[in-house]
Amino acid sequence: MAVPQMLSGMEKAHPKLISVLPGTQAVVRADAPVKGKVALLTGGGSGHEPAHGGFVGKGMLDGALAGAVFCSPPLDDAVAALERIDGGAGALFVIKNYTGDILLFDMAEEEAEERGIPVRKIVVADDVAVDVREGTTGRRGVAGTVFVHKIAGAAADKGLPLDEVFRVAQKVVSNTRSMGMALTPCLVPGRDKPNFELGEGDMEIGIGIHGEPGVRREPVKPAAEIVSEIMDRIVNDLPYVSGDEVVVMVNGMGATPLMELYVVFGEVGKYLAEKGISIVRSMVGEYMTSLEMAGFSISLLKADGELLELFDSPCHTPAWRQGC
Amino acid sequence: MAVPQMLSGMEKAHPKLISVLPGTQAVVRADAPVKGKVALLTGGGSGHEPAHGGFVGKGMLDGALAGAVFCSPPLDDAVAALERIDGGAGALFVIKNYTGDILLFDMAEEEAEERGIPVRKIVVADDVAVDVREGTTGRRGVAGTVFVHKIAGAAADKGLPLDEVFRVAQKVVSNTRSMGMALTPCLVPGRDKPNFELGEGDMEIGIGIHGEPGVRREPVKPAAEIVSEIMDRIVNDLPYVSGDEVVVMVNGMGATPLMELYVVFGEVGKYLAEKGISIVRSMVGEYMTSLEMAGFSISLLKADGELLELFDSPCHTPAWRQGC
Repeated sequence: MAVPQMLSGMEKAHPKLISVLPGTQAVVRADAPVKGKVALLTGGGSGHEPAHGGFVGKGMLDGALAGAVFCSPPLDDAVAALERIDGGAGALFVIKNYTGDILLFDMAEEEAEERGIPVRKIVVADDVAVDVREGTTGRRGVAGTVFVHKIAGAAADKGLPLDEVFRVAQKVVSNTRSMGMALTPCLVPGRDKPNFELGEGDMEIGIGIHGEPGVRREPVKPAAEIVSEIMDRIVNDLPYVSGDEVVVMVNGMGATPLMELYVVFGEVGKYLAEKGISIVRSMVGEYMTSLEMAGFSISLLKADGELLELFDSPCHTPAWRQGC
Repeated sequence: MAVPQMLSGMEKAHPKLISVLPGTQAVVRADAPVKGKVALLTGGGSGHEPAHGGFVGKGMLDGALAGAVFCSPPLDDAVAALERIDGGAGALFVIKNYTGDILLFDMAEEEAEERGIPVRKIVVADDVAVDVREGTTGRRGVAGTVFVHKIAGAAADKGLPLDEVFRVAQKVVSNTRSMGMALTPCLVPGRDKPNFELGEGDMEIGIGIHGEPGVRREPVKPAAEIVSEIMDRIVNDLPYVSGDEVVVMVNGMGATPLMELYVVFGEVGKYLAEKGISIVRSMVGEYMTSLEMAGFSISLLKADGELLELFDSPCHTPAWRQGC
């Protein structure tokens, strides 16, 4: 119920940037298709705003499918979006690693093939809270996905061909790791209670973006300790090492005051300085939320000259606007 | 305690844009002073992030004083900031209408005079929830203040002299009205309980940005009805009339999902269309918050060619970046 109303509000707020395709929950660039440009399509459940529709526009995504809250979007919307955004240079699907989304974009790929549209798929699985075990879907895609939207979007905007846009996206995925924590769960509309509950003074480390419980529950600790625990997991995973340059995103999950996100960023800065890792770009705010969950996630992207140039290039979307 | 940590995090996140003056809680442009430009100084209690430090940078503010949470900043910080940002063309103080802030900037004006810095003061009092009665401070300054930061900031950036920057700021104030509502109060750090309490399923219409109770409490109603009630107060106050062009800001108070802000924006759009009032620019997000309060405010600015040109001009601050 809330999703169509939200999309209608988004379209009214940003009529020059985005359109919602009639009869669907697909958000596309108002000026789609852009001839000769690789089209970027993403999507997933709603409840993560500004992701994903907020990143549709010049220099980022061409289309974003909005499912019901925390549910994968329907195939019909994917096909409608694809037909609208196809500029003749193929499409990159940016997929967060969830079973439903993987299935959706597999089917969408078949539909694209029938229409003669070349497709590459990039799967984002940046959440280090989830162990990779055989027989599971593996790591979830979380806020680091926004790095892919920005940088692969810039590569496409520059006119790079599909295989090159895919290569850049793959480099971003390889260099990105994330992890989150929560102080309160989120409540999915229509459900009676949250997916997990927290006692007064407890926090949950390693939460997902759909109200999934974390990997551990413990009493709330000072920001420095929480950040240190999360950063240990992230930094040791890639690993990020002394001399690396990184883009840091401190992402609010929905209900956390910006004041607290900056406190967290300060602790991340201290942690990285001790490791000899340099912060070259910073993002502090709400990029991929989980309705009204109180908490945050930290994402690191190991940058190089190519990635930074694309990160800095102009874009104009409802939620990210720079230099144009 | 949290405020110095926050400011340290902000400075680390945006070192090219802002500096925190050592020994103070004053945020200034990293490149201050800008010679020959009117300097804009604002400030107030913390807890409203991204206001005010998030709007310091090219095209907006030169300095922003951060008090303790919901407390007016000290005079020493104002003097330090003023000395740092004075570019020889005078200063405009942008003041939200609260007793403590008014007193602070009156004293700062005296200090400026002693230093030979010409000052004009603009007081923002956009909150239509508060009746104007004799013997009171009158209406509060709330989210509409951000319109003043942007537009007067652009006027100063363009090189206009102090009296002209003041005239533009005055026009913005005259044309701006705001009102808010809340579903949950905020909790000031260090206090045991919130300033007001709401029963399950209740909402508070006309809340302030410091956890002040609203003008009326009632059961939560559908978004369309809430918006209609708030918009009636706003639109009838100026009044905004058929044929007017307006900038609309739907401002989250801290814990409200962006999804809901867009639903609200959609209802604002319907309301204004029925009145024959055109939306020419839209802002949907968190601009002036109240810690983790769940709720939103709506602000309207009646625009004209001069105001729109300044609204659209480039700026580069932590929280608002366009075209540069």
